[in-house]
Amino acid sequence: MSFKTIEYKYGKIKIIDQSKLPDKLEYLYISNIKDLRQAIRRLSVRGAPALGACAELGVYLGIRDFKGNDYGSFIRKLKKVSGYLASSRPTARNLFWGIERVSNIAFKNKGLSVGTIKALILEEALNIINEDKESCRNIGRYGASLIKNNDGILTICNAGILATCGYGTVLGVLYRAKEKGKIFKVYISETRPLLQGARLSAWELKKKGIDALVICDNTAAALMQQGKVSLVIAGADRVALNGDTANKIGTYNLAILCKYHNIPFYIAAPASTFDLSLRSGKDIIVEEREPKEVSTLLFKREISPKGIKVMNPAFDVTGHRLITAIITDYGIIRSPLDKNIRKILC
Amino acid sequence: MSFKTIEYKYGKIKIIDQSKLPDKLEYLYISNIKDLRQAIRRLSVRGAPALGACAELGVYLGIRDFKGNDYGSFIRKLKKVSGYLASSRPTARNLFWGIERVSNIAFKNKGLSVGTIKALILEEALNIINEDKESCRNIGRYGASLIKNNDGILTICNAGILATCGYGTVLGVLYRAKEKGKIFKVYISETRPLLQGARLSAWELKKKGIDALVICDNTAAALMQQGKVSLVIAGADRVALNGDTANKIGTYNLAILCKYHNIPFYIAAPASTFDLSLRSGKDIIVEEREPKEVSTLLFKREISPKGIKVMNPAFDVTGHRLITAIITDYGIIRSPLDKNIRKILC
Repeated sequence: MSFKTIEYKYGKIKIIDQSKLPDKLEYLYISNIKDLRQAIRRLSVRGAPALGACAELGVYLGIRDFKGNDYGSFIRKLKKVSGYLASSRPTARNLFWGIERVSNIAFKNKGLSVGTIKALILEEALNIINEDKESCRNIGRYGASLIKNNDGILTICNAGILATCGYGTVLGVLYRAKEKGKIFKVYISETRPLLQGARLSAWELKKKGIDALVICDNTAAALMQQGKVSLVIAGADRVALNGDTANKIGTYNLAILCKYHNIPFYIAAPASTFDLSLRSGKDIIVEEREPKEVSTLLFKREISPKGIKVMNPAFDVTGHRLITAIITDYGIIRSPLDKNIRKILC
Repeated sequence: MSFKTIEYKYGKIKIIDQSKLPDKLEYLYISNIKDLRQAIRRLSVRGAPALGACAELGVYLGIRDFKGNDYGSFIRKLKKVSGYLASSRPTARNLFWGIERVSNIAFKNKGLSVGTIKALILEEALNIINEDKESCRNIGRYGASLIKNNDGILTICNAGILATCGYGTVLGVLYRAKEKGKIFKVYISETRPLLQGARLSAWELKKKGIDALVICDNTAAALMQQGKVSLVIAGADRVALNGDTANKIGTYNLAILCKYHNIPFYIAAPASTFDLSLRSGKDIIVEEREPKEVSTLLFKREISPKGIKVMNPAFDVTGHRLITAIITDYGIIRSPLDKNIRKILC
């Protein structure tokens, strides 16, 4: 495939405007943090790992025009920029991880000139793009071992090339399995309200020539009842120390359906999605998004009568006991997750 | 509310065109079975009890212009008409029940003139409208006893005034509870692909002044996790002798979520929805509808890349063990359903 989710080019962050897919493949060229924050808020760029990379590049955009060489003022500016970007979306751990990662460069290099620190921040931000691709490749390698010929694999939302700096986490597992010659079928849960499954995953999987089929979110249980689903793999926006996992709304639903039908339920996510400061998922903040996402069809046609109330939580939290294993770039972490995450990631 | 779902007026079946709601309240005036079959197929009229009434009136439309007084020819015509209407949709039991009910009038009155039989068929067809309203009132009365103050009630699709000849089954329970002064909150699962929850139930409940809130289908599990759902009530398209129940796709999903969260899961349906000739739900035919319902947003905007494959089963089947009780017009049938349905309905 000939597209890149995120690039840094001629002083701008170049991202695919994912809100336009699959109708149009259009790019946004972002040169300031206000535009970046807006692009993140309206999901022109989304997916936890992609947000991590955008946040790092964003911090650089925010500080690169800082004048002077006063370290204290520079750090104040850095914190202001970081706070501004961090306020774009609350749930995906990678966004904060990315900001902390580049901020630490500034803290660790206090003795250097502000100009040098800026350059180091840019270097770190550029590194993440390659690192994230490498992480995805590793997740793909580990995860592909879980896929057998003739499996039916159900997924939700988009944890693919578009959600990362390339290759994808959940879809990376499928791409790797295909590279290894495995034959399988993918069921894409469309993922209301914004249909990242039907729009984005369907687009990617079709381009990659993978046998895929879109279903309404309501259909997963019936497919499992019919024996068509061998495993479910979902992405993650934040994983707590005990393995509780926040991901796109509907993920917890799928995990319960798997438990009932005795089907393995996997999460695929890089280490950067783990928030080891959280003992459990209870403290994960779930973003509530605007009612219009639910009460309209992609902001076009109104569905419901005027003035109807709506709830629109963007994520849910799946308890670790429902998760068979988490496929990470450091290997597959199997249950009991509340013990094994520590062993591998701490 | 000042609308009627189905009426027979000046020789025509007058129905609300439900595909236009909630944008417009428009009526269709149907005078032949071809138009009726099309209205049923494209869901201008839907809901199992409403389909029963339409089928009865439809049989009359189909035979009323029969010329002559030859009973044998008349019966052949009746069977042709019945077969044609029966081929509109396969799952809702009431459609077939309605056709059988009026056909039996012809079989039982062999000795009478064809003209008299026609008139008896019309009478029977008109009776059903009142009978169905009465059934709904009974369901409402029985069901309201299950609702307590401050309950959060989740429902799917539309089993309301629009799905019946008036008052509704599931929503009838809520209307009755409100009449009794109970205070509660309703969560409406939007019900992709055609959004009968977000469009039709939201419209009805808002008109009735009931505190209601639309959620994406994916959100039900998270709401239950948060303790917001006290019970789920769903309608039915066909109930087998053992209590296995076909209803709108997503119902089985909700039943599993209820089981996991230890929440009562009720079905509300009149006796006419029971198919006592089926020992279990295994033999219920689930209608697969056209891919466009899923791959577009209400036939307007394409969601997915061109050529993507889609599955679109309109119903699923919930095993009787997941159902706490069925609220019928003959009383509440509690589990074990495979024993108790026989006792009350056979």
